[in-house]
Amino acid sequence: MIVKLKNKPSITGYACVGGKEEHKGPLGSKLDFYDETDRFDKETWEKSESEMQRRCFNILLSKKEIKPTDVDILIAGDLINQCSSSNYGLVDYETPYLGIYGACSTAAEGLGIAAILCDGGYAERAAVVTSSHFCSAERQFRYPLEYGSQRTPTSQHTATAAGAFTVERAQSGAYISEVMFGITNDAGIKDANNMGAAMAPAAVDSLTRYFKESGKKPQDFDLILTGDLGLEGHRIVTDFMDQLGYDMRGVFDDCGLMIYERSRKDMHAGGSGCGCSAFALAASVIPDIICGKFKDVLFIGTGALLSQASVLQGESIPSVAHVVRIRHREDIQ
Amino acid sequence: MIVKLKNKPSITGYACVGGKEEHKGPLGSKLDFYDETDRFDKETWEKSESEMQRRCFNILLSKKEIKPTDVDILIAGDLINQCSSSNYGLVDYETPYLGIYGACSTAAEGLGIAAILCDGGYAERAAVVTSSHFCSAERQFRYPLEYGSQRTPTSQHTATAAGAFTVERAQSGAYISEVMFGITNDAGIKDANNMGAAMAPAAVDSLTRYFKESGKKPQDFDLILTGDLGLEGHRIVTDFMDQLGYDMRGVFDDCGLMIYERSRKDMHAGGSGCGCSAFALAASVIPDIICGKFKDVLFIGTGALLSQASVLQGESIPSVAHVVRIRHREDIQ
Repeated sequence: MIVKLKNKPSITGYACVGGKEEHKGPLGSKLDFYDETDRFDKETWEKSESEMQRRCFNILLSKKEIKPTDVDILIAGDLINQCSSSNYGLVDYETPYLGIYGACSTAAEGLGIAAILCDGGYAERAAVVTSSHFCSAERQFRYPLEYGSQRTPTSQHTATAAGAFTVERAQSGAYISEVMFGITNDAGIKDANNMGAAMAPAAVDSLTRYFKESGKKPQDFDLILTGDLGLEGHRIVTDFMDQLGYDMRGVFDDCGLMIYERSRKDMHAGGSGCGCSAFALAASVIPDIICGKFKDVLFIGTGALLSQASVLQGESIPSVAHVVRIRHREDIQ
Repeated sequence: MIVKLKNKPSITGYACVGGKEEHKGPLGSKLDFYDETDRFDKETWEKSESEMQRRCFNILLSKKEIKPTDVDILIAGDLINQCSSSNYGLVDYETPYLGIYGACSTAAEGLGIAAILCDGGYAERAAVVTSSHFCSAERQFRYPLEYGSQRTPTSQHTATAAGAFTVERAQSGAYISEVMFGITNDAGIKDANNMGAAMAPAAVDSLTRYFKESGKKPQDFDLILTGDLGLEGHRIVTDFMDQLGYDMRGVFDDCGLMIYERSRKDMHAGGSGCGCSAFALAASVIPDIICGKFKDVLFIGTGALLSQASVLQGESIPSVAHVVRIRHREDIQ
């Protein structure tokens, strides 16, 4: 079901923080802050990720010149067990806190909820914060880095990045006109090193449901942007959509393909993680919508809902994809 | 900030499923289904918990005589890493899915979001599902059961239970009139066997903020019900509130104290977990509001936002408490 938002809730602020590899990438110069060591002055990777979220939210507040108490609701989540990067990173703020879990779709889920809350007048200003960290994610989902495991060609590099946004009814050049939450999907993929294939069916499902219900087609958008399908997932979605009669070529990109140089073999199939799409949105896509380069963008946050235990217990990987339509507002620059 | 809901979004359906100990307790006869083995026909505790959620949601749908596609949005979460009990338990339903993480406050967080979505017309019917399982939680947060660790007097017994609710604008005898999301709080407690003490400061913070903003006092309610503070947390909150000038005696209860016989020493400080408050609400509190035994209930879902890694890394335990005010509707029985 597409939720239509009548009051043009807008993305009025954005910030992004990243690590060394993200700074090297095509969007690196747009980072508000980066740490060459990926450690953010902390002694464990989990604490580093929390600190990265904290700094990102701080920078957002500074850029907006607002205090934590000027935010009615803070919506946050991440990949780490019990969403502890968010819980610990954001614990010191005097802002009501809503924890969400959508794996790598968290930025889309958060923006969707924030937009609805502001549209309905349930919040004047909401903030969305999310992050991922390569080192904490590898240790948790696969192997500790010290093990030096060989990565497969389909594997993706979890972005060391955090993104933060404010959403309000106040006028800005980028507003959220529609939200459609995804239906979970399990296509039977069991390979924890092929998140793109696991998430592609959810993206196809959400895209086709969106196009059917709205009557729109891919070419009606300047950009259709998935969160972190990477090379493998991007190809699968392009092929599947083509078979279903939707030609995605020319308008379809993926945040996981935007944040690292595509020529880099060591990034394998591209970026992933909650921080991947949040970083790409804050560094590039939202500013491009605000300035009018893109008029109408369909953002599909994709998430693989696995855990280490579920993979070890032989279960396949469910996934979900949430759709957020973000448009340029002609009357505001 | 108290969010006031004008359109009386109502809890129109409820179901609960539990395990052996929950069936033995004072609310055991109200379970829609229970499994004496706690296994729910599955070979791992994680899969058992997923299956428990699945059955609970199925029973809710049957009781309401509706299909999964009659639900606009399914809001779910649990304690297990990456919320996998919900992700796997609810993957087969054709219902848009919103994953949330609020630890043991998940039922309150879910009901709050569902009520807002229905109040604003963003969903006609929302469902909230949550669960916890003693065996999967012990293994994940503390020790596997086989280890036979000694439990401390302040430790709580994670309820093996799931609860599910429908929320709609349709008229029913129990409606949600106000929601106030909690601010995270860290009082420095580091003992993972004393969740009551870790969560009490968040409950005190949310209660005092609610009373200050609303101008109400404890005696204005028939029942003030926290989620799972247990004996220890219930005492701390009673004392703290008393010092702050709020006399909670006579109206203050806790779901963790409702679900097991208080005389049972092996349940230590009482029940806890996402399933604890969901079970108590579905088995007893919501029916009592619908029939008019309670006219006005302040429900405060409490959550300890720790992870096993955060405790092992020496961090203290942040917590959060979300307030949901549920009232009896006089014009409907």
